[in-house]
Amino acid sequence: MSDKPTPLSGFPELLPEHRAVERAVIASLAHTFELHGFANIETRVVEPLERLSKGGEIDKEIYVLRRLQAEESASDSGLALHFDLTVPFARYVLEHAGKLEFPFRRYQIQPAWRGERPQEGRYRQFTQADIDIVGRDTLGFHHDVEVVRVMVEALDGLVRTVGLPDLSFQVNNRKLIQGFYRGLGIPDVTAAIRQIDKLDKQPADAVAALLVSEAGATDEQAQRCLDLATIRVADTSFVERVRALGVDDELLEEGLTELAAVVDGCAGAVGEHVTLEANLRIARGLDYYTGTVLEVFMAGYERLKSVGGGGRYDALASDGRTTYPGVGVSFGVSRTLIPLFADGVLAPGRKVPSVVLVALADDDSRPAADAVAQRLRARGIAAEVAASPQKFGKQIRYAERRDIPFVWFANDQHEVKDIRSGDQVAADPDTWTPTDQPTDQPTPEDTP
Amino acid sequence: MSDKPTPLSGFPELLPEHRAVERAVIASLAHTFELHGFANIETRVVEPLERLSKGGEIDKEIYVLRRLQAEESASDSGLALHFDLTVPFARYVLEHAGKLEFPFRRYQIQPAWRGERPQEGRYRQFTQADIDIVGRDTLGFHHDVEVVRVMVEALDGLVRTVGLPDLSFQVNNRKLIQGFYRGLGIPDVTAAIRQIDKLDKQPADAVAALLVSEAGATDEQAQRCLDLATIRVADTSFVERVRALGVDDELLEEGLTELAAVVDGCAGAVGEHVTLEANLRIARGLDYYTGTVLEVFMAGYERLKSVGGGGRYDALASDGRTTYPGVGVSFGVSRTLIPLFADGVLAPGRKVPSVVLVALADDDSRPAADAVAQRLRARGIAAEVAASPQKFGKQIRYAERRDIPFVWFANDQHEVKDIRSGDQVAADPDTWTPTDQPTDQPTPEDTP
Repeated sequence: MSDKPTPLSGFPELLPEHRAVERAVIASLAHTFELHGFANIETRVVEPLERLSKGGEIDKEIYVLRRLQAEESASDSGLALHFDLTVPFARYVLEHAGKLEFPFRRYQIQPAWRGERPQEGRYRQFTQADIDIVGRDTLGFHHDVEVVRVMVEALDGLVRTVGLPDLSFQVNNRKLIQGFYRGLGIPDVTAAIRQIDKLDKQPADAVAALLVSEAGATDEQAQRCLDLATIRVADTSFVERVRALGVDDELLEEGLTELAAVVDGCAGAVGEHVTLEANLRIARGLDYYTGTVLEVFMAGYERLKSVGGGGRYDALASDGRTTYPGVGVSFGVSRTLIPLFADGVLAPGRKVPSVVLVALADDDSRPAADAVAQRLRARGIAAEVAASPQKFGKQIRYAERRDIPFVWFANDQHEVKDIRSGDQVAADPDTWTPTDQPTDQPTPEDTP
Repeated sequence: MSDKPTPLSGFPELLPEHRAVERAVIASLAHTFELHGFANIETRVVEPLERLSKGGEIDKEIYVLRRLQAEESASDSGLALHFDLTVPFARYVLEHAGKLEFPFRRYQIQPAWRGERPQEGRYRQFTQADIDIVGRDTLGFHHDVEVVRVMVEALDGLVRTVGLPDLSFQVNNRKLIQGFYRGLGIPDVTAAIRQIDKLDKQPADAVAALLVSEAGATDEQAQRCLDLATIRVADTSFVERVRALGVDDELLEEGLTELAAVVDGCAGAVGEHVTLEANLRIARGLDYYTGTVLEVFMAGYERLKSVGGGGRYDALASDGRTTYPGVGVSFGVSRTLIPLFADGVLAPGRKVPSVVLVALADDDSRPAADAVAQRLRARGIAAEVAASPQKFGKQIRYAERRDIPFVWFANDQHEVKDIRSGDQVAADPDTWTPTDQPTDQPTPEDTP
């Protein structure tokens, strides 16, 4: 290893001070998820290619594995890295169903890989945080409300403790759209949903033309679809506005009821920083959504498109005999944090966890300095000893470069200097407690 | 996804109740590492194949990546999954050196991949916990003592809080062996080290024969090598025993001094559960070790060979101009935990984090039940609401199956039942605190 390595495009790595913030984010998310009874799992990073490629659209973005120098018949050929956490979770549920309790609430915070072209917010390796609730045979609708509300709370915690920009949940319901289109008499409902999903990339009249050409709609029907898609409100007034469009359909009614329940059910959790709206143009292209659908956007970062999303899937997994319905929301940890670090929106944490640097008068005093550090650690105060007995001024600058706020001097008497204020006071390593300790790394206790 | 998946050999996955224990292990390790000022990093999981294959011996175990349907000239060809955390860490240090503070203490807890034949304790995907200290140009020897001591403390924490079997650190020093062999006049010192390393697999006389045939030793020299290799003591008395073998060499003296310093320096950290011995047959085959070497063994699991190991490498990384010496220890998280789970030595944790199940009288009372759960969560008590309003007996069994210790009844008055004892008492959701809460998942605060 004698050459200077160059960064790999699409595989971002964090410096320790940014990783500290990412760890705080993950700890905060995990804390909220666990408060709501979600158990953590990790799945292996590989799946049989066959299982991954059932999704269809993302074949060429999959990373396939082979063993170097393996024979063609090697048993591990046909494996590939997962490209999300949903496919492996569905497989995990099927494989371990006999040992799981349903409804099964799980959260999973792991990387996934896609060989797509790297750009801001899109990486070849990226970390996601997913929560899902899965039932066996059936899963009550109230779990839709639950899972959205839990993610609202979790992200609200991030805004408040880590300083993420404000976030907006945009929620819709597939039954509502499908029922509306059906009641309206659109010939190809699925094609219509796919076209409406393009509204964030194309102007309204282009989408109207596509509804006519691709979904068989009349101009009048296309206009009504667009009318539906423009409804966006933070309360349940969308129900009356949809009814005013004059379409009558049983599935539409069911969708209106469900969406209203999600909006109502989250009312106590949303607030100043995390908002939630019924946005009737949200469709999400993936075919397996069957009810609630949602996307999450970050204020000032609309260019990233959604930083999270999810919904209801009545057949998350099936082994032929049993079907497992699920509802879940995914949050893009890398997609969110890496642009925020790059823009300086999220300040870095400290470079090292140490709160105290124990200074070293000379090499012979290392055992004494070690003993001081150990007494501090015994009370939960992270400490390190200076690497070498430089002049004290140099040792203070050594602490400064590492973002260590306190320097301890163990000479005839013990003294500790707060290098931010310059104050230096006598102190006892068995009782001294750091004041105004930097808390860029919130502990789970700091979160709601 | 309509077929029942079968497990992939070598890619073990944990159920939620075992993952809870693994998370407790990782949290405990991280807590100790951070108390000592080690910063966390994660590296991307891929490295250029060229960099990985410099190790030489493990070529055929590497998993190489390619994009499905990628052209031969794809820019991401030539990437492979890392097989340990040391090679990527060395690359990380080189790549980010300008932004790191040295000596740089880091810990890294991530999976690695090897395409080797799966067996107990050896998996194709496995998680390791590594600590290393790296200097720029120089790195004081006292960091050898530090890094060993930190891992002793970290593993002692695991034995005491998670219930791992006792562990034994076996430490040696390459300078000691090399100096001894050189002073003895062995023609090929490196070959001799490689043969001595086989003592755990082959009988002494077979190794003696190999020393003669492969390292050019005389029978007399081979015997003295074996004499050295049999020395194993828990204190610094090895120094006198080595001197009694009558070999005089400067490097040998340096090795004796260093090894004695490690043994002395860890004396305050070792104890009943984690012991440390100078064991002069420990060599570790890898050529890059240049001083301290060590392996960690687990009581009753000697068949796994070492569950951890590490040492000093004077050239962990180099970019041609600057050399970065390092010293580190690695602990095999999967290698340790998975056999212990399989044998029932480590009890599983709870299946869900919830401490309270809020029972449901009927569907209409769900909002009230949600509110109770939310009041408990506001005080850090994990709670979930029953999925459906079954008979209370069924809801209690539902809690039992999930290892939830308390069931809350919110009728005319609030009552909570400890389903382990059967006790049911009146309770206020704003003040009640779970008593004797199961603590299979120790928080960082529980660790030393």
